[in-house]
Amino acid sequence: MESIHVLEVIGTSAFSIAGAFAAMTKKLDIFGIFIMAFVTALGGGTLRDVLIGDVPVRWLLDFNAGLIVFFSTVAAILFRNIIKDYHNILLFFDSVGVGFFTVVGIRTGIALDFHSTTCIALGTITACFGGVIRDISLSNIPLIFEKEIYAMACVLGGVVFYAMFHLGASKLTVDLFCLVTIVAVRLLSVRFNWRLPTIFKASKS
Amino acid sequence: MESIHVLEVIGTSAFSIAGAFAAMTKKLDIFGIFIMAFVTALGGGTLRDVLIGDVPVRWLLDFNAGLIVFFSTVAAILFRNIIKDYHNILLFFDSVGVGFFTVVGIRTGIALDFHSTTCIALGTITACFGGVIRDISLSNIPLIFEKEIYAMACVLGGVVFYAMFHLGASKLTVDLFCLVTIVAVRLLSVRFNWRLPTIFKASKS
Amino acid sequence: MESIHVLEVIGTSAFSIAGAFAAMTKKLDIFGIFIMAFVTALGGGTLRDVLIGDVPVRWLLDFNAGLIVFFSTVAAILFRNIIKDYHNILLFFDSVGVGFFTVVGIRTGIALDFHSTTCIALGTITACFGGVIRDISLSNIPLIFEKEIYAMACVLGGVVFYAMFHLGASKLTVDLFCLVTIVAVRLLSVRFNWRLPTIFKASKS
Repeated sequence: MESIHVLEVIGTSAFSIAGAFAAMTKKLDIFGIFIMAFVTALGGGTLRDVLIGDVPVRWLLDFNAGLIVFFSTVAAILFRNIIKDYHNILLFFDSVGVGFFTVVGIRTGIALDFHSTTCIALGTITACFGGVIRDISLSNIPLIFEKEIYAMACVLGGVVFYAMFHLGASKLTVDLFCLVTIVAVRLLSVRFNWRLPTIFKASKS
Repeated sequence: MESIHVLEVIGTSAFSIAGAFAAMTKKLDIFGIFIMAFVTALGGGTLRDVLIGDVPVRWLLDFNAGLIVFFSTVAAILFRNIIKDYHNILLFFDSVGVGFFTVVGIRTGIALDFHSTTCIALGTITACFGGVIRDISLSNIPLIFEKEIYAMACVLGGVVFYAMFHLGASKLTVDLFCLVTIVAVRLLSVRFNWRLPTIFKASKS
Repeated sequence: MESIHVLEVIGTSAFSIAGAFAAMTKKLDIFGIFIMAFVTALGGGTLRDVLIGDVPVRWLLDFNAGLIVFFSTVAAILFRNIIKDYHNILLFFDSVGVGFFTVVGIRTGIALDFHSTTCIALGTITACFGGVIRDISLSNIPLIFEKEIYAMACVLGGVVFYAMFHLGASKLTVDLFCLVTIVAVRLLSVRFNWRLPTIFKASKS
């Protein structure tokens, strides 16, 4: 995938806006808002790269993603009262981001000859763990651990990725099927309020 | 130590169950439960490997530990109402896990010719910091920082390790003395409700 | 810079005391107090080294910094009721620490031929993220994200660093101007209660 890519811009922007909004809700100052946007957008990829040893992490060397975060966050601050009325659009962009980052993570694993299970795990980490680090930093229980179907969408997308891959589809087709699956699952899960089950357990033992 | 080892199975299972139970107490969904079990069991070793630069971290390449986590968590979910009545057994297994992971961490340091202090630190990180990451992720103050004697048991075990080591004991004897010391300190500390002192300080200054 | 350096001792001590005091406020036990002091003093440099791939991290191999943390924390515990009445001195030492660690971080980046923006980011991470990790570990919103001007002081110091650097000043002069700028901004911001603006946003969207 090219360094700058329309899907990367969409995904990075949507993640940055989500991070900036979470920071504003917690009344952080503007430094905190930018850091939370950055962590949400780039934290998953950073964790992935640290775990596989691909360091220095890319954003230290290549400022494209950082610039997208910066301008998206400025926009999120300036137009916060407008943007929040368009949360269907935000949700759609966010879902595209989840799909895109999952594909990036899977492809990273494939380039290193990792097992398909590992590659799907790397895709899920890339797409989901920026939000996890953001939530932990803000003293929230990570959203994806209790309320929303993100990770399952990534795993399903990964399964579709390998199904198409083994059918011999072209790289572009494989990537697109994965991405569309993830966007579809994500949007349907919000629309119909799907939740993963929780397990009741009365008290600590 | 062999890749699959009865003590590793016991320790990884006990840690996974502790992580899964902590997640259920916080009403996480099943994805969150599995992630918390994984983090509790493998987070300490992952942090150790990132700090020493032994990457890609092992669980990306070798699925044995991941499979133990998976099946232990399934068991923890299915038999949660039975398991919680056996917390003496869980505590014993957990203590074996603490001892085993400490030995693994110390041996990792020795293989890299680190100083004994560093090796004991790596043992303690391996055994204790999975639980720390779990607690921070769930917005709890880490248990081992305020309530329970884990880390001191690891440090004592490490001292015993090096005492036996310098007396020329065999590898197996050294490992066993370390592990038994840790299990004993851990069980005695729970039995007699030992706590490390806290320091009273009226307010932030 | 030499391994042991009067500024490093001052900065590491001040950061350790700040970490120990934060831990005592949360009623951690003595193990927790030492770990929080360690994380506050060495967490920023550790995160920097993990992100750039300079591992094993230095404190595993060189115990000087660890010993400073240890003795500073012992002093913080023993003299807690005396020290807290001298918070102007603590604040001054803490500011020296922020300045010193920023210089160390920038120089680390320069040694790797990184872009000036990256170097300033590394300086800010070195100086500020130990406190961030401490606050997250204690379930607090990081202080520097909502209340205090730390990071902006580091960024300004970094700009002064490069201004002097491009004017051809000597290494020592460059370092000193950077450090003095940071100490001055930090002290003035506390004296006059400067805050970065926060952005009001009514609710999550």
